[in-house]
Amino acid sequence: MIPSIPDNVPAENLHAFCIEALSKAGVNQQQARITADALVMTDTWGVFTHGTKLLAGYLNRVKNGGVHTDAEPRIDREGPGWAIVDGGSVLGQVIGHFAMQTAVKKASSTGIAYVGVHNSFHFGAAGYYTWMAAEANMIGLSMANDVPSVAGPGSRKAVTGTNPFSYSVPAGPGRDPIMLDIAMSTVAGGKVYAAVTRGEPVLENWIIGSDGKPTTDGSLYPHAAALAPLSGHKGYGLALMIEALAGTLTGAAQTHGIENWMFGDPTRPTRHGAAFLAVDVATIMEPDQFFERLGSLIDEIHEAPTADGVDRLLIPGEREWVNRRRALEHGIQLPADVWEKIQEVADAYQVALPG
Amino acid sequence: MIPSIPDNVPAENLHAFCIEALSKAGVNQQQARITADALVMTDTWGVFTHGTKLLAGYLNRVKNGGVHTDAEPRIDREGPGWAIVDGGSVLGQVIGHFAMQTAVKKASSTGIAYVGVHNSFHFGAAGYYTWMAAEANMIGLSMANDVPSVAGPGSRKAVTGTNPFSYSVPAGPGRDPIMLDIAMSTVAGGKVYAAVTRGEPVLENWIIGSDGKPTTDGSLYPHAAALAPLSGHKGYGLALMIEALAGTLTGAAQTHGIENWMFGDPTRPTRHGAAFLAVDVATIMEPDQFFERLGSLIDEIHEAPTADGVDRLLIPGEREWVNRRRALEHGIQLPADVWEKIQEVADAYQVALPG
Repeated sequence: MIPSIPDNVPAENLHAFCIEALSKAGVNQQQARITADALVMTDTWGVFTHGTKLLAGYLNRVKNGGVHTDAEPRIDREGPGWAIVDGGSVLGQVIGHFAMQTAVKKASSTGIAYVGVHNSFHFGAAGYYTWMAAEANMIGLSMANDVPSVAGPGSRKAVTGTNPFSYSVPAGPGRDPIMLDIAMSTVAGGKVYAAVTRGEPVLENWIIGSDGKPTTDGSLYPHAAALAPLSGHKGYGLALMIEALAGTLTGAAQTHGIENWMFGDPTRPTRHGAAFLAVDVATIMEPDQFFERLGSLIDEIHEAPTADGVDRLLIPGEREWVNRRRALEHGIQLPADVWEKIQEVADAYQVALPG
Repeated sequence: MIPSIPDNVPAENLHAFCIEALSKAGVNQQQARITADALVMTDTWGVFTHGTKLLAGYLNRVKNGGVHTDAEPRIDREGPGWAIVDGGSVLGQVIGHFAMQTAVKKASSTGIAYVGVHNSFHFGAAGYYTWMAAEANMIGLSMANDVPSVAGPGSRKAVTGTNPFSYSVPAGPGRDPIMLDIAMSTVAGGKVYAAVTRGEPVLENWIIGSDGKPTTDGSLYPHAAALAPLSGHKGYGLALMIEALAGTLTGAAQTHGIENWMFGDPTRPTRHGAAFLAVDVATIMEPDQFFERLGSLIDEIHEAPTADGVDRLLIPGEREWVNRRRALEHGIQLPADVWEKIQEVADAYQVALPG
């Protein structure tokens, strides 16, 4: 069914493919480039759930009008250390990129900045934006709200979104930034689907049935089960912090007011909210001192004794940076589900497959 | 052994007791009052692990010189939206109070502020400081590093502290603030001790043995086991974010460089780090609009259908505010372990027991 997947697609070919498809769909050059940058970077990290696999769904919304192509994100109101951005319901990567750029610029004069966004859209990998901050030698935080898919402790139904959260910390010359990108559920919905496909039960802390109790029957998700919050009240509590900073304070839609970007009405903007924080290391501490202190922390963790079969304790993001170097050198080995989506885009927009 | 615990000790009596003991130990009136405020507030929340139970240990460090009484926290360096505070190794509540006050003041002009602290000390309940921010109608975040007691994913030994984290969100007139206060371990060490005392095994995700694998033998903790990070790599990753913001960027001691406040050399400052963020709602959004939006989120969660036996889904902090109102009306029912510590202080400093 699926023609064979080319081995090791060069990142630049995948990037050019994204730009061509986005352009043919009516996205302007700058927005197409920013979106392609983020999607392909994410694929090079090996985070294939949030890379070019998303393009087909994004283009479906562009085609149906739910994602706008005639707008740009802009600052609604602002002060020295903060801004509220109207995302204009354009592609989420364009919005996130603009918002984090704004946060970085403001933090360079005030030390720290908060940028909240309304009229945002699915923004892909939260880590992309915190990596941008780390590139500017800042500690970055990013987060977004989403349609409820995660139960609270004791609820029968989903009450919060997975509400992605990321932070990055710049580690100085010769070291990769620390980078964490997590959802507030124990596992992503995709892991539940994968277990069902393999015919396996899911673990007891993965999903909550419609009786409000844990279940191992993954086939109930999502129609009759919600994802479980990570560590119960802790993940639930953190998801509400993200809702407050990315939703409540920004003027975005909250919880059930958000349109499901994949399964909802594709003619309507999703009205997601998002928030970005940047803390400028150089304003607060002599950077070399910071990097030396962080380096000693990283070294200490790498030297920690590990369980049998564990080579070494990884720093958050370490696996992604190893993947990226390999991808840049040898190309990206795309999984079948991603390739299928790329073919869908190639067919719909008459773009030659990358290879 | 323990004389009977008085029923429902009035909060003001417990507060007066703390102040008298702290004063007799050589702590000045203002520092004694701030510390008593925080400890007794925490007891009224029903968070007895972080209330007046701590006083005996704090006074032991005051007596031995590890906690200073001849210093005050002061701003080391600062900018419009940030400050680095030298805590002066005084009582942690005094330091946290000063630092959050500083963050609130700065955020009122820049919208958001970061205050990092070095020469801090155990600061009790992280939620106390974010509640302060909520009282000023700001979203508050607080966090601290600590001596490693929590394993990383795959490590045989502890690599991070429990690294407490709290946030609060002001909910406007007639509503309690949302308030979460959590450690980055699955459970606190106290829960492991309690299970051992009851002769029960601990759950498989609570501790990690010295082979780097989960164990249900709670008696191994802490000499031959570490606490497990909440949700594996997620809690571990968040603990490192806290270390970066509260430790690395503040100039405080990091990880194993921190002195154990309870079991370490009581003549030496612990050199903890901490960080406080405040986001001023009124600067960013019309407060009534914010409170209305947050109120609708809270109502929605309260109306969520719940599992059998669950009355309603609680907002983070909701239980604590119910406890506090009961405590202020009827007095505080102190648990035996707290009363034992209060007696220890009463004996050592010749202070009449509260009742």
